[in-house]
Amino acid sequence: MTLSDELRISLDGKWRHVREQSRKELATFDLSYDHDLTLDEARERVLGQMKKLVATGIPAAGFKVSSGGTGDPGASVTGIEMLAQFDLSLMVKAGVQWGLFGGAIENLGTEKHHEQYIPGLINLDILGCFAMSETGHGSDVQSLETTATYDPATQEFVIHSPTPSARKDYIGGAAAHARVAAVFAQLVTKGESYGVHCFVVPIRDEDGNDLPGVTTSDDKHKGGLGAVDNGRLVFDNVRVPRENLLNKYGQVDEGGTYSSPIESSNARFFTMLGTLIRGRISVGGSASAATEVALSIAGRYALKRRQFGPDPDHEILLMDYRMHQRRLLPLIAKSYAMRFAQNQLVARMDRVQSSEEPPPAHQQRELESRAAGLKAAQTWHATKAIQEAREACGGAGYLAENRLTTLKGDTDVFTTFEGDNHVLFQLVAKELLTSYAQEVGGLDPVGMVKFAAGTVADVVKERTAASQLIQRLIDARPGGGDDDHDLLDRGTQLNLFEDREQHVLETAARRLRRAGSDKVEAFKVFNAAQDHVIRAGRVHIERIVLEAFTAGIARCEDPEAQDLLRDVCSLYALTAIEEDLAWFMGHNRLSDTRAKTVTALINDLLDKLRPHTLTLIEGFGVPEETLGAAMLVD
Amino acid sequence: MTLSDELRISLDGKWRHVREQSRKELATFDLSYDHDLTLDEARERVLGQMKKLVATGIPAAGFKVSSGGTGDPGASVTGIEMLAQFDLSLMVKAGVQWGLFGGAIENLGTEKHHEQYIPGLINLDILGCFAMSETGHGSDVQSLETTATYDPATQEFVIHSPTPSARKDYIGGAAAHARVAAVFAQLVTKGESYGVHCFVVPIRDEDGNDLPGVTTSDDKHKGGLGAVDNGRLVFDNVRVPRENLLNKYGQVDEGGTYSSPIESSNARFFTMLGTLIRGRISVGGSASAATEVALSIAGRYALKRRQFGPDPDHEILLMDYRMHQRRLLPLIAKSYAMRFAQNQLVARMDRVQSSEEPPPAHQQRELESRAAGLKAAQTWHATKAIQEAREACGGAGYLAENRLTTLKGDTDVFTTFEGDNHVLFQLVAKELLTSYAQEVGGLDPVGMVKFAAGTVADVVKERTAASQLIQRLIDARPGGGDDDHDLLDRGTQLNLFEDREQHVLETAARRLRRAGSDKVEAFKVFNAAQDHVIRAGRVHIERIVLEAFTAGIARCEDPEAQDLLRDVCSLYALTAIEEDLAWFMGHNRLSDTRAKTVTALINDLLDKLRPHTLTLIEGFGVPEETLGAAMLVD
Repeated sequence: MTLSDELRISLDGKWRHVREQSRKELATFDLSYDHDLTLDEARERVLGQMKKLVATGIPAAGFKVSSGGTGDPGASVTGIEMLAQFDLSLMVKAGVQWGLFGGAIENLGTEKHHEQYIPGLINLDILGCFAMSETGHGSDVQSLETTATYDPATQEFVIHSPTPSARKDYIGGAAAHARVAAVFAQLVTKGESYGVHCFVVPIRDEDGNDLPGVTTSDDKHKGGLGAVDNGRLVFDNVRVPRENLLNKYGQVDEGGTYSSPIESSNARFFTMLGTLIRGRISVGGSASAATEVALSIAGRYALKRRQFGPDPDHEILLMDYRMHQRRLLPLIAKSYAMRFAQNQLVARMDRVQSSEEPPPAHQQRELESRAAGLKAAQTWHATKAIQEAREACGGAGYLAENRLTTLKGDTDVFTTFEGDNHVLFQLVAKELLTSYAQEVGGLDPVGMVKFAAGTVADVVKERTAASQLIQRLIDARPGGGDDDHDLLDRGTQLNLFEDREQHVLETAARRLRRAGSDKVEAFKVFNAAQDHVIRAGRVHIERIVLEAFTAGIARCEDPEAQDLLRDVCSLYALTAIEEDLAWFMGHNRLSDTRAKTVTALINDLLDKLRPHTLTLIEGFGVPEETLGAAMLVD
Repeated sequence: MTLSDELRISLDGKWRHVREQSRKELATFDLSYDHDLTLDEARERVLGQMKKLVATGIPAAGFKVSSGGTGDPGASVTGIEMLAQFDLSLMVKAGVQWGLFGGAIENLGTEKHHEQYIPGLINLDILGCFAMSETGHGSDVQSLETTATYDPATQEFVIHSPTPSARKDYIGGAAAHARVAAVFAQLVTKGESYGVHCFVVPIRDEDGNDLPGVTTSDDKHKGGLGAVDNGRLVFDNVRVPRENLLNKYGQVDEGGTYSSPIESSNARFFTMLGTLIRGRISVGGSASAATEVALSIAGRYALKRRQFGPDPDHEILLMDYRMHQRRLLPLIAKSYAMRFAQNQLVARMDRVQSSEEPPPAHQQRELESRAAGLKAAQTWHATKAIQEAREACGGAGYLAENRLTTLKGDTDVFTTFEGDNHVLFQLVAKELLTSYAQEVGGLDPVGMVKFAAGTVADVVKERTAASQLIQRLIDARPGGGDDDHDLLDRGTQLNLFEDREQHVLETAARRLRRAGSDKVEAFKVFNAAQDHVIRAGRVHIERIVLEAFTAGIARCEDPEAQDLLRDVCSLYALTAIEEDLAWFMGHNRLSDTRAKTVTALINDLLDKLRPHTLTLIEGFGVPEETLGAAMLVD
C-alpha cells in the first residue's frame, strides 16, 4: 500500500466502498463533456446518462426500504458527490430527481405517496422537479407567493401564481424533462394561510406538452451546467386532488379543516425544511469533489510544465516556484480539511436519518446548521480554488479541453443554490447566538436580536467538550495560554480558533442585545452588525473544520500518512490564521513578533510538502485517466 | 448638469469625445450576445461587426499619419476599451487585428511594411494575427522556440517549428480568419542566433486554405470569448522573402550579415517588446470597462430587489443590507480608482508615442512597468468584482440573459494574456529593485539579485516627489508621522501607502543582496523571496493608483462631485489598508487602537455613500439601455 493509498483511504471515509464502485463504474459511462452540443442535445445526453445510473443502485440508496429503496443515506449522498468528479450537470440532474424531488416525496409525504411515486422516480418512469425558488424569492422560502387554496366543493387544491414574481424559477427539469413537480406553496384553507407546504403537481403530459393551466418556460443558457434544463413554471388555477398534499407535517380534511402534529407554523416550516437537508450536504460535497478535480489538474500540470529559470537551459518546474507553491498547496490543504469535515457531516446525517426515531431537536438543529455552514465554506472554497487552478495553468487553463473553465462555470452557482452563502453563514450564527432556541425560526433578525442570550460561551464550550480528543489537545498545548507557544502545535491552533469564535460570538451578542423590542429598530441594530454576525458563522465553521481534520488524522492508521496529514493540517490552520492575522493581533491573541512567524512557518511547510505534491493529489482519489485534461496527456 | 454627469466627465478623462462617440455609435450596432450560435456562426458574426467598426475611425487612430492612419494613440486605446462595454469578443478581435498585428507592423516594421500592410489592415482587406505565444512558452517570450533561419541562396527566411512545444498557440485569428501572421521567431543567420524578431508570414490563401508548410488548427471552445477564433500554427520550413523581416530593430543583408541599431541582444529584445505596450494597456482598460458593466448591473439590481426584512410586509432592498454594501461599494470605489489610474497611463502612453523622438530610456521603462502593473491590478480586480457581482445577483446572476456570467467568462483570461499577472508584478518589482537599470532585461532573476542596489528608497522618493500635489498632501498631514493621525486624511493615506512600499522594497532588496554570484544559488535566493518580491510590485501599484485617484479629484471642477469623489477615494484607500491590516500593525504603522477604527470608518463611509449608489453607477457612463440584463428590464 503506497502512501497515497493510505491518504485516499483516510479521505474516502466511511463510504469508501461507494467511492470505489463509482470510480470504476462511472469511468465506463463516457461522461466526458462535449462542448459542441446544442442545449437540447446536451439535455438529451444527460438524461441518457441518468438512466445508466439507475443500475448502480445509488438512486435507490436514498430511500427507506419501506418506501421502495435500500435505505443507505450516506451511500446516497456519497454517490451523488462522486458524480461531481465527472460531470456536474449529471450530478445536478441526479440531485434534483433523486435528492430534491425524491427527497420531498420521501420526507414530506406519507405511505400512499411513497407507494405511488418512489419506485417510479427511482427508475425514472416518473421524472420530477423541485419547484421551490421563485423569481421573487429564493433563499427566503417562507415568503414564497405561490398559493394552494383548498376547495372543499371538489376536494382539490388550486395551485396558483398570483403575481409575476411568484413564478417558479431556476427549477432544474422544469424546462424540458419533468412531468411532475413538487411545488412549494402557501397552503390556504377556509380563508386562512398555514404557511408553505409541498404539493405534487403534474405539469406535462406524456408527449411533453404543458398541462392546462401550467405554463413552462426555459431559463436557457447559464454560466455553466449546460445540460441541466432549468426553467420556469407559472400556475393559473391548476387543480390537484386533496391527496396531492405531501401531508406528513400538515393535513387538510375533506371539509377543509387543517391539522398538523406541529402546532407553531414557524416550527412546522423549519421542521419540513430540515428534512430536506441532504440537498445542502450534496452541494457542499460536490463542490469539494469538483475542487479536488481542479486541483488535481493544476497540480499535475505544475509538476510537468517548466517556465523561466536561472538560465534558458535550466527551466524550472512551476511547482518549484515559491509563488506557485503558495498558490496551490494551501488550497490542497484546505481541500483535505473540507473533505474530513464533509465526511463527518455525512456520517452524522446518516446516523440521524437512518434512525426510526426523530432526533432530539437540538441535535437536528445542529446538524442543519453544520450542513448550511459547510455548504457555504465548501462552495466558496471551490469558487476560489478552481479560479486559482485555472489561472495557475495560464492560457492552457482557459481552453475548454482542459476542463478547468467548465468546472468553474458549473460550480459557480453552488454559492447561490440551496441557499445564498451569506444567508447560510448568518443562519449558522443565528443558531449559535440563540443557543438553538426553538422559538427562533430561520433567519428572523428580530428573533435573533431578542434571543441573543448570555449563554454564547457555553454553547461553544459545551460543543467543544463533546470531543475529548480536541479538549485533550487544547489542554496539552505548551505555554498554557500565554503568547509563548508553538504555532505548529495542534492544541495551540485549536485554542486560537475556539477562542476567536467565542470572542466574535460574544461581541456580536453584546451588540444585538442593545436593541429594544421595536421591530424596525431591532432590524437596524441587526443590520449594523450584519458583517459581524456573518463573520461569527464563518469562524465557527473554520473551527469545526479544523476539529474534523484533527479527528480524521487520529483515525488514520498509517503512521507515515498521519505525519504527512499533520503537516497538511498545520498548513490549513496557519493559512487560515494568516488570512485573519489582523484580528489575532488586534485582539492580543498573537504578539507582533509571534504573528511575523506565521508566514515563515507557512513557507517552511511549503518546502516540506513540496516533495509530496503528487502524493497529496493522488490522495484525492481522482483517477488520472478520468481527469480528462488534454494538456496532461500530450 | 447632474452630479452623475460631473462624475462621468471626470472618469471619461481626456478622450471623452471618443467615449461619447462610442456610446452612441456602438449602441446602434446590435452587439448583444447570442448564446445559441455555434462557434462558426459566432465567429462570422463578430467579423461582420468588425467591418462596421472601420467607419468609426477608431482603427485608423492607432497608426501614424505617415503610415496611413490618423495618429491618435490615446483615441485608439480608448476606442478599443469602449468595445469591452459591449462585447469582449469584439474587443479582443479588434485588439488583435489593429492593436497587436497592426502594432507589430507599425512599430517593428519600416516604411515599406507600413505602405504594404497598414492601409489594408485598417480596412480589413488584410486580416492578420499576432503569433507570439507558443504551447511551450507564453509569458517567457525570450525563450520561444520557433526559428527563422536566413538562407542567402534564395534570400529567404525559413520559418520552422522545431518541436511540438514550438507550436504557436492561443493565437486569436489563427483558427479561421487570419490570412497573414506576425510571427515571433529566433532569427538565425550564418549559424548564429540573434534573438526573437518578428516576421510577416502568409498562412492562408484566398479561400482560407492553409498555405504549403503551414498547419493551422483550432483551440475550439474556451472559458469565454466564444467568437474569437483562437488557434494554433505549426510551420514546416516555410519560406518568406528577406523583406518580410520587420526590420526596424534588426536587419539581415542579402549576404546574411546581421545588423541592428541596438547592440545588446537583450536590450534589443526589450526595446522591441516595449513598443508593443498598447496591448497591455488595452487589456487592463478593457477589464475595467467590463467590471464597470458588471457593477452597474449588480448595483442596479440591488436597488430594485427586496429580500427578507423586519417582517414579511417590509422587505428590504438588497442595497440596504450592510453586507451587500460591504460587497459592492468598495468594488465600485476601486473601479473609480482604476479608471483614474488607467486614464493617467493612457495619457502618458499617448505623449510618448505621439512624439517623433524616442523617449528617454528611463521614462519608457517606467511607462512599461506601469502598464504591466496596472494590467495585473485591473484584471484581478475584474476577476474578483465580476465574480462578486454575479453572486450578489443570486440565481438571476447565473442566467446568461443577465450577462454577468458572460462578462466573467470573457474576462477570465485577461489575468493571463499579455503576461501572467504574477509575472507582471514581478516585472514591476524588478524595475524598482534595479532602479530601471538598463543592464537587467525582462525578468532575469539572477540579474535582479545582482542589481538589487541600495537606491531603492531613492527610487520611491524621487518618483513621488514628481507630483507636487501628492507631496504637499503628505507634508500637510496631521500628527506629523506619529500614530495619532486621521485615517480619513488623504496625506495620511498616501504616506501609509508610500511608506509601506518603501519598506517592502527595501527588505526585498536586502534579502536579494544576500545571494552570491553563482547562478543557481542566486535563483534559490530569489525564489525564496518570490512572494515578497511580487508583493513589492503589488503595493507599488496600489500607491500609484491612490496617487492617480488623488490627482483625478484635483482635476474635477465641480465641488459637489469632488466631495463625493473624496469619500469614494477614502473608501478605496481604507479598504486597501484593511486588506493589509496585519502588515500595517505588525510594522508599527498603525497601533492596535488605530487599526480597529479602520473597519468602523469603512462602515461610516458605506452609510455615507449608500444614498449615492445610483449616482456612482451612472458615473461609470455605461448607458442603462446598453446593459442588456433581462432582470433589470422586467
